[in-house]
Amino acid sequence: MDEERTAAWWGRRAWELLSAVRARAPLVHCVTNLVSMDIAANALLAAGASPAMVHSLREVPEFTPRCDAVCVNVGTLSEGWLPSMRAAASAGRPWVLDPVAAAASEFRMEACLSLLALRPAVVRGNASEILALASRSLAASSSSSTTTFKGADSTHDSGDALQDAKALARSTGAVIAVSGAVDYVTDGERVVGVSNGVAMMQKITATGCAATALIAAFLAVVEEPSDAMAAAACALAVFGLAGEIGMESGAKGPASLRMHLIDALYCLDVQTVTSRVKISLHS
Amino acid sequence: MDEERTAAWWGRRAWELLSAVRARAPLVHCVTNLVSMDIAANALLAAGASPAMVHSLREVPEFTPRCDAVCVNVGTLSEGWLPSMRAAASAGRPWVLDPVAAAASEFRMEACLSLLALRPAVVRGNASEILALASRSLAASSSSSTTTFKGADSTHDSGDALQDAKALARSTGAVIAVSGAVDYVTDGERVVGVSNGVAMMQKITATGCAATALIAAFLAVVEEPSDAMAAAACALAVFGLAGEIGMESGAKGPASLRMHLIDALYCLDVQTVTSRVKISLHS
Amino acid sequence: MDEERTAAWWGRRAWELLSAVRARAPLVHCVTNLVSMDIAANALLAAGASPAMVHSLREVPEFTPRCDAVCVNVGTLSEGWLPSMRAAASAGRPWVLDPVAAAASEFRMEACLSLLALRPAVVRGNASEILALASRSLAASSSSSTTTFKGADSTHDSGDALQDAKALARSTGAVIAVSGAVDYVTDGERVVGVSNGVAMMQKITATGCAATALIAAFLAVVEEPSDAMAAAACALAVFGLAGEIGMESGAKGPASLRMHLIDALYCLDVQTVTSRVKISLHS
Repeated sequence: MDEERTAAWWGRRAWELLSAVRARAPLVHCVTNLVSMDIAANALLAAGASPAMVHSLREVPEFTPRCDAVCVNVGTLSEGWLPSMRAAASAGRPWVLDPVAAAASEFRMEACLSLLALRPAVVRGNASEILALASRSLAASSSSSTTTFKGADSTHDSGDALQDAKALARSTGAVIAVSGAVDYVTDGERVVGVSNGVAMMQKITATGCAATALIAAFLAVVEEPSDAMAAAACALAVFGLAGEIGMESGAKGPASLRMHLIDALYCLDVQTVTSRVKISLHS
Repeated sequence: MDEERTAAWWGRRAWELLSAVRARAPLVHCVTNLVSMDIAANALLAAGASPAMVHSLREVPEFTPRCDAVCVNVGTLSEGWLPSMRAAASAGRPWVLDPVAAAASEFRMEACLSLLALRPAVVRGNASEILALASRSLAASSSSSTTTFKGADSTHDSGDALQDAKALARSTGAVIAVSGAVDYVTDGERVVGVSNGVAMMQKITATGCAATALIAAFLAVVEEPSDAMAAAACALAVFGLAGEIGMESGAKGPASLRMHLIDALYCLDVQTVTSRVKISLHS
Repeated sequence: MDEERTAAWWGRRAWELLSAVRARAPLVHCVTNLVSMDIAANALLAAGASPAMVHSLREVPEFTPRCDAVCVNVGTLSEGWLPSMRAAASAGRPWVLDPVAAAASEFRMEACLSLLALRPAVVRGNASEILALASRSLAASSSSSTTTFKGADSTHDSGDALQDAKALARSTGAVIAVSGAVDYVTDGERVVGVSNGVAMMQKITATGCAATALIAAFLAVVEEPSDAMAAAACALAVFGLAGEIGMESGAKGPASLRMHLIDALYCLDVQTVTSRVKISLHS
């Protein structure tokens, strides 16, 4: 009964936040990777937000402060863009970090750690990324995370990273979201699990990046910084739910799923969101 | 009666130009933003043109003169790409400027003004972009345009920008196209309105950029520089018409609309174009 | 009879390689052009591989050696990326070169020639690209290849380039694949023809780039370097077959074909591949 009430509360919260995104069309500044530009912008538009991809250091200091939230994604990191990422992260707006393939190189790992020091409201990654980040952020050792390195795709389940995610949240002050079959979202004390989504979403490039961008849009409309956990959990649930509906809409493979997912995100209604969002307290 | 005849004339003109694009497959050089690469290239291919995305200053001076038209789009402007944009604009080919989010920063505004000085045949933007550009281009003052700034999405109706568009056309010699529910195209004296299109196209990222690329393809096949107005109006009508047919083809949201729009652009026939293009003289 | 047996052998070989890609999910490092990022990554994922788009010289020397294969594509070449392409090509992994629009500029041609010297396992291009490359690689003269230059789209049939492709293969040691209505694949002695595919695929941007990325994935799972020819032919056949099935799935134009093609690539089964792959010895 209590569980049912919790689920219903989260369903209403997700709808509140999605409705606020639609009503206020927050301007979301993305410094994101080259692969994700199209799907991230389209996911933001479908959810009701206004995407802005800007990466020049000549623009960021002036532009970002006028935005409602920021998404920084290191997927195709370069020396040229890193200062812009740092500037966007430092502009005083709520922001989300996506540490794509954090263990791909020492340069990337150090970039992620330096961005982490700029206090993101939320960090969203898959289990391998969060494990790699935590092992470097929490210790001096370089850990075993690179031994199973597989690029941007995870080789771990989200549950494997839960303890590290909690520790990372406590040490950084960021909400940590670990994507997987169940997405875990934690502020270091509380943990919620998000069970929306379908496995085939992993076969569409940059769905994780698009989910991170959506978290930024939701962050833009919460009242309190302490609501970052709700923003992250609700954005992931809404995105996963759009994937479920996309699958039910007759997806035959990853490309039709992508299309149906974006369409579903655009069409989500109060009934669907409140009844199908699956967020629960993790004990 | 006269209106009907005018409409019929424009329908035939749009079909002539689209047919010429299909027959001659003009090579359209795009220095465009990172978000729009995929949709702009696919729209050009669907219309029968041959897209070429080239941005290195090591290539532009040699490459652009061999192209049939040029599209310059500042959506993800950087210091590195700006000289290439200037070189492409200076190569002696007919070219179109898309001043995406012109008011996003002083750097971007100045880049747009410097490009404007290189005499584009056409400038296409939404009302907010044209208003921002006009207020800076026509006066020394920095105007109120930034106060309602919302990234790449317009906060104005196209009609709001019509007088400024005419003034900008007169002062620069460029045809100015203002996108909106009705697209207005003006050479500073005459104004035509293009009523094709559906509202949901604004929920697909970079549709404006793709429309600008299509204007470049149409520019490549007109005989006289004075036909730039016809090229712009017909390209916008054809693109909008493809959106209408896309919507009628069962689009359920922005992603399926995008697919159906590109398919429709590829399939447009003489009957559809001549009967459904909606261009009229604006009084 | 012998022809039938050959065809059947190739069908089984294509299935073996596709199955190996699915089973081993090779990490394919792409330094590819900005237009192709989305479709190349999605094609690799649909085929079962794991794409990694990385272009910073700060990452390549450390990252590429951990990958299973490499794809280098010069479509949107720049001075900044060329050293990364060279580093990726020199990392000791099997790699494929896509010399997009090789004749677009002297800078690009020289970049292609310098990459060719780094011994790619396979080079895949259209007839115009292979002709341009061969004429410069095999002679001191700059040839007539630029006179018919049309950007990334070919103005020649694949058969026109066959003799040059064989000569280029002999001189470089690379397998040369020439895309067209029939794709020819040669190691300089043997030639096989791949007849899978549909003409409309040329109206989707970056399908050639995606095919090249798929060759890299297939290269990652062959046992011997001498199997590069099988990897190239089977990857092209599988990609073309996905296009055929995409067309049969109700494609109405290039955008729906793109979606159905990726879906089909994801769904290909043993029966379809072994019965429909069309590879034959060219006499």
